[in-house]
Amino acid sequence: MVSQNNIIYQDGAFPIENFNGSFLRYFLREVETVHAKVRRYTSPDEYPFSRNLPSPVLPPLPHPQMLIPNDINYNEKLVEIYTKDIVPLICKAGDDEHYGSAATKDVEALQLLSRRVHFGKFVAEAKFTDPKEHDEYVRLIKAQDRDGIMKLLTNQAVEDRLLRRLKRKALVYGQEIDDDSPLPEGATAKGEGVKGSQSHLRIPLDVVAKMYEKFVIPLTKEVEVDYLLRRLEYPDFVPGIVVGDGQR
Amino acid sequence: MVSQNNIIYQDGAFPIENFNGSFLRYFLREVETVHAKVRRYTSPDEYPFSRNLPSPVLPPLPHPQMLIPNDINYNEKLVEIYTKDIVPLICKAGDDEHYGSAATKDVEALQLLSRRVHFGKFVAEAKFTDPKEHDEYVRLIKAQDRDGIMKLLTNQAVEDRLLRRLKRKALVYGQEIDDDSPLPEGATAKGEGVKGSQSHLRIPLDVVAKMYEKFVIPLTKEVEVDYLLRRLEYPDFVPGIVVGDGQR
Repeated sequence: MVSQNNIIYQDGAFPIENFNGSFLRYFLREVETVHAKVRRYTSPDEYPFSRNLPSPVLPPLPHPQMLIPNDINYNEKLVEIYTKDIVPLICKAGDDEHYGSAATKDVEALQLLSRRVHFGKFVAEAKFTDPKEHDEYVRLIKAQDRDGIMKLLTNQAVEDRLLRRLKRKALVYGQEIDDDSPLPEGATAKGEGVKGSQSHLRIPLDVVAKMYEKFVIPLTKEVEVDYLLRRLEYPDFVPGIVVGDGQR
Repeated sequence: MVSQNNIIYQDGAFPIENFNGSFLRYFLREVETVHAKVRRYTSPDEYPFSRNLPSPVLPPLPHPQMLIPNDINYNEKLVEIYTKDIVPLICKAGDDEHYGSAATKDVEALQLLSRRVHFGKFVAEAKFTDPKEHDEYVRLIKAQDRDGIMKLLTNQAVEDRLLRRLKRKALVYGQEIDDDSPLPEGATAKGEGVKGSQSHLRIPLDVVAKMYEKFVIPLTKEVEVDYLLRRLEYPDFVPGIVVGDGQR
C-alpha cells in the first residue's frame, strides 16, 4: 500500500494517456466513473472525489431528503491527509511495485473515510433539530460564530467512548487467527466466550485511535460546523421529504 | 445484497445500452475493465470474469512463472454457484433497490472467491513437485485417472482443520462490537485477553463452514485435479523462472 517516495501519489509520475495527475487520481476517476453509472453519487451519503462523472444508467432511486442543499465536500482535504499523514502511519516504507493493488485499497479507504466524515452533515442536522439546543444553535448561527458552534457540538465524553470502542475493534478485528482447535463447549451460534489467538495484530492499536483523534473526528466536526453555518439559509426546511430525482 | 427474484442476476432485466446480460455481468465488466488497465489480470493469481478486456496502461511487472500454461478458469461456475446457492444462504429475501451497492459487494465476493479457488493451481503444483508423492502423481496423470488424483490430493484432516479455523474466524470477525468500556489491564499492543461483546453475529457460523464445505473446497480441488491432469504436457517445466511480459 505504499511505494518509495509515494510514487503513485505524485502528479505525472506515470504517463497516462489523456490524464494529468497522479496514478491514484487516475484510478479514482476510473472507479468513480463506474460507480457513478450505477448511481452511487445520487445517494445522500456518498461524495465523489472526481469531477465531470457520467450520469447513471439506472433510473433514480427515491430517497428522503435529510439535508439542506449544500456543496460541502472535504474530499480534497481527505486525499491530502490520507496520502501525506495516514499512509506513512499504516504502511511500511519501500516500493513493491503493486501499484494497482495499492490504489485499489487506497480507493476503498478513501471512500469509507469520505462517507464517515460527511456523515457529519446528518449529525449536524440532528443536533440542530433537537429542541434541547435548537435555540442556542440558531443564536450562534445568526452570529456566524464558528468557535461557539464547534464548542457547542463537541462532547468530549462521546469522543472518548468512540476512541475506546475503536481500540477494542482494532484488537478484535485486527488479530490474526491461526487456531484451528475445536471450538469450546458453549460456543454456540452466539459465539460467547470465543476469541482468536491474538498473537499479533495487523495494525497497532494506537495508530487506529490516533488516526481518528487527529484526523477523522476533527474533519467530521469541521463538516458539522460548515453545515450548521449555512443551516439558516433554509429556515423552513424539514428533513424527511421524499424526493425522486436522485439529486441532493 | 439481494433483490426480489434476484433481479440483478437476470439477463436483460435492466435495459443497458450496448450490453446484453444481467446487471451483475454489466457491473463486473465495468469494474474489470478498470482493473485490467492497472494490470490486475497479469498477476498469476487473478482471473477475470469478463472477456475482451483492455490492455494495461502500466508497464508489465516481472514475476516468477510458477504454473504451467493453462486456461483453467472456474469463474463461470463460480458466478452460477454464487448467485444461485450462496446469495440465498447469506442474504435476506426482498428488494431494497440498492442494486449498485449490492453488485459492488457481489464483485468483491466473487473476486475473492475466484482468487481462493484458483489458488488450487499453486497447491497442485506444490503437491506434484513434492518428492514424497511425485511418482504416484505421474502414474495417475499418465493414466488420466481423475478419481485417483482426487483421492490422492484429498487430506480430510487438513480440511477439518480449515473448517474449524473458519468457524473461529466467523465468530471473531463476525461479531458486533458495542462495548466502549476501557480496555482491561494487560490489554497491551498484543491484545491478549480482549474480546468483543459477541452479542450477535453478522453471519451464522454454520453458513460460513457450509459454504466452504459444499462449494469452496470442492471447487478448489476440481481446479487442482484439472491442473494435474495437464501437468505432464510440460514435463520439463520448473516453477520459478522470472518472466517479464506479464503473461501466464
